[in-house]
Amino acid sequence: MTGRDGGADLRPEGNTPVVILVRPQLAENVGTTARAMANGGLFHLRLVAPRDGWPQERAWRSASGADRILDAAAVFDTVDAAVADLHRVFATCPRPRHIVKPVLTARGAAAEMREISTRPLRFGVLFGPERAGLDNEDMARADALIRYPLNPDFMSLNLSQAVMIMAYEWWMAADGTPPRELMTNETHVATKGELENFLGHLVRELDECGFLRNEQKRPGMVRNLRHFFERGEVTEQELRTLHGVVTELAHGRGARRGKRDA
Amino acid sequence: MTGRDGGADLRPEGNTPVVILVRPQLAENVGTTARAMANGGLFHLRLVAPRDGWPQERAWRSASGADRILDAAAVFDTVDAAVADLHRVFATCPRPRHIVKPVLTARGAAAEMREISTRPLRFGVLFGPERAGLDNEDMARADALIRYPLNPDFMSLNLSQAVMIMAYEWWMAADGTPPRELMTNETHVATKGELENFLGHLVRELDECGFLRNEQKRPGMVRNLRHFFERGEVTEQELRTLHGVVTELAHGRGARRGKRDA
Repeated sequence: MTGRDGGADLRPEGNTPVVILVRPQLAENVGTTARAMANGGLFHLRLVAPRDGWPQERAWRSASGADRILDAAAVFDTVDAAVADLHRVFATCPRPRHIVKPVLTARGAAAEMREISTRPLRFGVLFGPERAGLDNEDMARADALIRYPLNPDFMSLNLSQAVMIMAYEWWMAADGTPPRELMTNETHVATKGELENFLGHLVRELDECGFLRNEQKRPGMVRNLRHFFERGEVTEQELRTLHGVVTELAHGRGARRGKRDA
Repeated sequence: MTGRDGGADLRPEGNTPVVILVRPQLAENVGTTARAMANGGLFHLRLVAPRDGWPQERAWRSASGADRILDAAAVFDTVDAAVADLHRVFATCPRPRHIVKPVLTARGAAAEMREISTRPLRFGVLFGPERAGLDNEDMARADALIRYPLNPDFMSLNLSQAVMIMAYEWWMAADGTPPRELMTNETHVATKGELENFLGHLVRELDECGFLRNEQKRPGMVRNLRHFFERGEVTEQELRTLHGVVTELAHGRGARRGKRDA
């Protein structure tokens, strides 16, 4: 009924935060939450008093294969019961008011959770119902609140989008991918010598065909071409292609001219 | 038909990236994409050959009030046409292969886009169709690829989740919220003097009731209490409450004892 045989072979990896959906209304949102959790490497899902009961087939249908997370989800009647075995609890809250509590960004919370995860502590994050969010009693059970910096002129954030951002920041907090790198696959970035070799080839052919015949302008024109080819990283493979392009253009021109002359 | 009269009063703010959905399949995903864009302060949406045509009422129904973004969306037949007036194009791509191109994280891309946005340049991000993603011809039109660091064991990322992460990082790249701060509202963090005043009150009452009668253990017990109350930031308002708690407990004890003795 719930498609529990399918899905990706997900399992808990290390000490990860428990995602606690408090009084969720739509089963689809529970499913898309599971999907977002899988994207960010989370596994433990708890539901507090889901409006339409549990399990709900629609959750599995919208989870895109994150079935294992739904299969293992635990259901509780109250927030107190859902957090009883946890040592640290965070609560997402878009508009906290009249509360004395630490407020973290998603990024700040992810950094704290990564620190907590190295200790023998269990921890989780409360997400409120779609329409109203967490109420004051829920928030009073949290050590800290999490408020995402997002457009204050448009606060309607979908539940699974909220989980996605937290799961993404959780993943990013331990990720070492450089912000920019050149993907070169089989080839490598050309050395200056390889580039020089190509520029020499290009300039010889341009001299040959007469493009650089103006002796006064020639040095500037060569320098401008060099500036273009030096601007981005070029690979050894691309240089070989460019060598071919220059050779073929020179050859082709000859061929066409030959045709025209015939 | 499309509910174009409703929704939040969204408008373009500054020079923001154009979100370009290439051959999107589900109108719902266009709507939730608009919602995610609004969350991250984006406005400009372009659609390349949407599978079911455009406009689609279902998009407006799933946009949760981000109607203005859909109202202003432009439709193109080809990627070439959709990027023709842009100076810089990024392409999201979960599994780039056999391509020589810079690869950015979402965070790295957001930083570059913020830099570009300060110049008189138009720029955008391509997002591929739900099932297949961008094809090689689409990616060849981009200056750089964007690959999110996310769980490689579960790559199925919903289209509007992908847009949400990019929009979130765009917003975060210009956001100055501290990662953690204590929200105190009307009150303020107590001074050491205010805390000392409370601890004096507490210890006097504990001496009075006999809790600290063991003279040898007394200094350590007082110090441990101090350690607890010094551990987290306490506010002046909370201290006033705690003063009341101590006074009432002492009074109540007397009252109960009085009752018992009677």
